[in-house]
Amino acid sequence: MEKNDGVTIIVFSGDMDKVMAAFNIAIGAAAAGKETNMFFTFWGIKTIQKGNLTGQGLFGRMMGLLNRGGINRIGPSRFNFGGIGRWMFKQMMKSHNITPLEELRQTAIDLGVKLLPCEMSMAVMEIKREHLIDEVEDSCGVATMLEKAFHSKATLFI
Amino acid sequence: MEKNDGVTIIVFSGDMDKVMAAFNIAIGAAAAGKETNMFFTFWGIKTIQKGNLTGQGLFGRMMGLLNRGGINRIGPSRFNFGGIGRWMFKQMMKSHNITPLEELRQTAIDLGVKLLPCEMSMAVMEIKREHLIDEVEDSCGVATMLEKAFHSKATLFI
Amino acid sequence: MEKNDGVTIIVFSGDMDKVMAAFNIAIGAAAAGKETNMFFTFWGIKTIQKGNLTGQGLFGRMMGLLNRGGINRIGPSRFNFGGIGRWMFKQMMKSHNITPLEELRQTAIDLGVKLLPCEMSMAVMEIKREHLIDEVEDSCGVATMLEKAFHSKATLFI
Repeated sequence: MEKNDGVTIIVFSGDMDKVMAAFNIAIGAAAAGKETNMFFTFWGIKTIQKGNLTGQGLFGRMMGLLNRGGINRIGPSRFNFGGIGRWMFKQMMKSHNITPLEELRQTAIDLGVKLLPCEMSMAVMEIKREHLIDEVEDSCGVATMLEKAFHSKATLFI
Repeated sequence: MEKNDGVTIIVFSGDMDKVMAAFNIAIGAAAAGKETNMFFTFWGIKTIQKGNLTGQGLFGRMMGLLNRGGINRIGPSRFNFGGIGRWMFKQMMKSHNITPLEELRQTAIDLGVKLLPCEMSMAVMEIKREHLIDEVEDSCGVATMLEKAFHSKATLFI
Repeated sequence: MEKNDGVTIIVFSGDMDKVMAAFNIAIGAAAAGKETNMFFTFWGIKTIQKGNLTGQGLFGRMMGLLNRGGINRIGPSRFNFGGIGRWMFKQMMKSHNITPLEELRQTAIDLGVKLLPCEMSMAVMEIKREHLIDEVEDSCGVATMLEKAFHSKATLFI
């Protein structure tokens, strides 16, 4: 892979449409032979969770409930309407042969995209390493993410 | 225009305030003599639609209804309140001589900003070339957008 | 500080979680010795307001009401539930020793991060220089912000 010329994507959002855009861009960059890193923080951390319940304290358990189901339970940023939006979106994508989110994530992994979990987000939301999918890198902080960004051609906040 | 030094803006949002920010940045970059590309994807595609109804299937028609009216029917991301937000925002901008969205778009075009429609978004939302304003470039995919980004100084996801 | 290698952050959002992410990234960049600029526009301008009421006209006063309280009254982009979200978020952060927004802003200032107010946003929202915290730079337009971006390694739209 080319160095100093890659793409760093900060996945802050947990909305299905934005996460989908993030993975599509990451896949495109990796397919073009560029070093590609995705840093999952705040709501974006749900995208790399296994989907089981997490958290011990009151707030951790509330976050766990909200994040339950992982990548397959993510709704779009608009027209969610209590889950109908997600269903509608999935139907529409299916009828146009658009790849589901879980497959997009697997394609990204297969192409060598690095998935970096934000350690502060994990601490606040009481998410442990074993709650994340096996393929993620070691959790890291903003400094490590910025190190990637300083060696990238484009850095996106999604 | 200078090469390898431009700006690429991914317009994902269809919110009036964000679209306005996107065009203001694009205009500023083009006015500074930089190659400027805007890639319209997901909800952002509304920004370059003519505003007529689109879509044949159920979901395509639903998207068509939601996107009807094009750039003049776009509401802000906050305080929309069923259209009041958009009206309030427009009044406030008018009273401060802020350029309306449609004029901003025209200024961008006049300054040579390239408007690139995302072909996947067009397929999913059942939008055809004739539904888009005449000034847009040929529709393209993530690979083409990334090619622009790799020759840009700044790439933004809005 | 290193030149041509810094970070420019456009803070468009006024949501607590996004603003927090913006300051964390800015602090990380400044701590790594990079020139770091934050350009506050649209809803983001609240982040650098003192918090008192602003605006003379109808719309300016409405914006003033919405922005009252400054950085301590900012709610997260999700699960706000009329203020409960903000309270919950603050409790969760407190119990995990996460720095509050106001302290984050001070740390950024202490590390030399430049805070640039967008002059168009100030005009539209009827915010004057004396409504902003003392530490901000002179207000500026998109052209000045882009000048910083063209000398940065990464430019983020948050």
